[in-house]
Amino acid sequence: MKGTLAVVGLGPGSAELTTPAVSRALAEATDLVGYTTYLDRVPLAANGQRRHASDNRVEIERARHALTLAAEGNKVVIVSSGDPGVFAMAAAVFEALEGGPSAWRVLDIRIEPGVSAMLAAAAHAGAPLGGDFCAISLSDNLKAWATIVRRLEAAAYGDFVIALYNPASRARPHQLGDALAVLRGLKAHDTPVVFVRAAGTSDVTMRIERLGWADPAHADMRTLVLIGSSRTRVIKCGGAMRWVYTPRSERDMP
Amino acid sequence: MKGTLAVVGLGPGSAELTTPAVSRALAEATDLVGYTTYLDRVPLAANGQRRHASDNRVEIERARHALTLAAEGNKVVIVSSGDPGVFAMAAAVFEALEGGPSAWRVLDIRIEPGVSAMLAAAAHAGAPLGGDFCAISLSDNLKAWATIVRRLEAAAYGDFVIALYNPASRARPHQLGDALAVLRGLKAHDTPVVFVRAAGTSDVTMRIERLGWADPAHADMRTLVLIGSSRTRVIKCGGAMRWVYTPRSERDMP
Repeated sequence: MKGTLAVVGLGPGSAELTTPAVSRALAEATDLVGYTTYLDRVPLAANGQRRHASDNRVEIERARHALTLAAEGNKVVIVSSGDPGVFAMAAAVFEALEGGPSAWRVLDIRIEPGVSAMLAAAAHAGAPLGGDFCAISLSDNLKAWATIVRRLEAAAYGDFVIALYNPASRARPHQLGDALAVLRGLKAHDTPVVFVRAAGTSDVTMRIERLGWADPAHADMRTLVLIGSSRTRVIKCGGAMRWVYTPRSERDMP
Repeated sequence: MKGTLAVVGLGPGSAELTTPAVSRALAEATDLVGYTTYLDRVPLAANGQRRHASDNRVEIERARHALTLAAEGNKVVIVSSGDPGVFAMAAAVFEALEGGPSAWRVLDIRIEPGVSAMLAAAAHAGAPLGGDFCAISLSDNLKAWATIVRRLEAAAYGDFVIALYNPASRARPHQLGDALAVLRGLKAHDTPVVFVRAAGTSDVTMRIERLGWADPAHADMRTLVLIGSSRTRVIKCGGAMRWVYTPRSERDMP
């Protein structure tokens, strides 16, 4: 039996946001590999499927383990949250593939996309990504803080809408405050900043603030932070800020 | 009956990539509004649902029409391809909402996210968006070409992976060639460039080229173009270039 490896994204949380393609891959797998928290979101299959749960920090080892299982002839699925290609497991699989035995290169590998946290957070806020946008992870586990600062500067120069992944964690409490300080020196202080926590789940909450006084303490590990371009606008409903959107056009509205 | 408006993304093409949340919204709607090509992808519902098809160019009028129908008490769904917040209908709805009658602000509006063309194209290619990335539409219908050039420069300065939407159309045959020329002045000529056509459909095709000699004629309206960062790599399988990925880490691989 020829082994297969699918790297799938469950979407941001609700089963209603998991694509049928991903659900089918999960149901047909003989082996599921992933971070415990994500595996716990997968319904139990009837076929005696094996589950290989691991800690969140060992991505490359997990990828090698999954490739080894596939090379043994199993139908392996690596489970990511959101989309597997956005700050998730797909890149680790190709790192492992490139550095691994040549036999791995004949495996049937596919990536099954999912709704990313950024898209779910943007949908909850309205349409903040209506113009050109960028996504930056504030985690400096894998890259230098200087790289992050350079990207924030570039994003401001290009007037992109900015989606910040991994804005804060217990190990990195200062990142978001430092990033907002960089952006305050480069962008208008009334630029909308949206904190969306637990996007795509029934626990979702949102705060709309402004860059000049946005409080980084409002973000945690489950928060996605969206920072507007110069065109991004806030709409009030019943006196309260409810929607954030970026017009498609640079020109005045019709 | 209180009116509702959902703006939904069908995903990139295959019904297997449409989320259950979107399928449910479509099945429950009394009125579907959208570009003819997208409405044709929606299965017929049993409930006598009305369909309001329109040309692709009248987004703001379509949004106003949908809001008007919702204000009359209907359950309205606006149908987008991909994700509705990425170069699609959600922003037009909020433009219309902001400029429209105050009665529209009490409507129950929600945005249902979908798998964007960028995520489907990246999944087909491997994991090119493994690092920080940006998305830029090359259409200058709604913004100045100078803005696009500035964003390309910013993306190169920040060493983002770049996803180019709307790389070419019959009305704009020169945009992608001009964009690649800008990037050739700023990035290494061996940077991987991936053309993914009809991502997320059974017609998908892919070409992997290099920035220095990438041929813009390989893109049309259905193509998504992905341009690597300085870290993006190509993996060969059986002698042919098959996968493109961007390592998560700036550091050397373990």
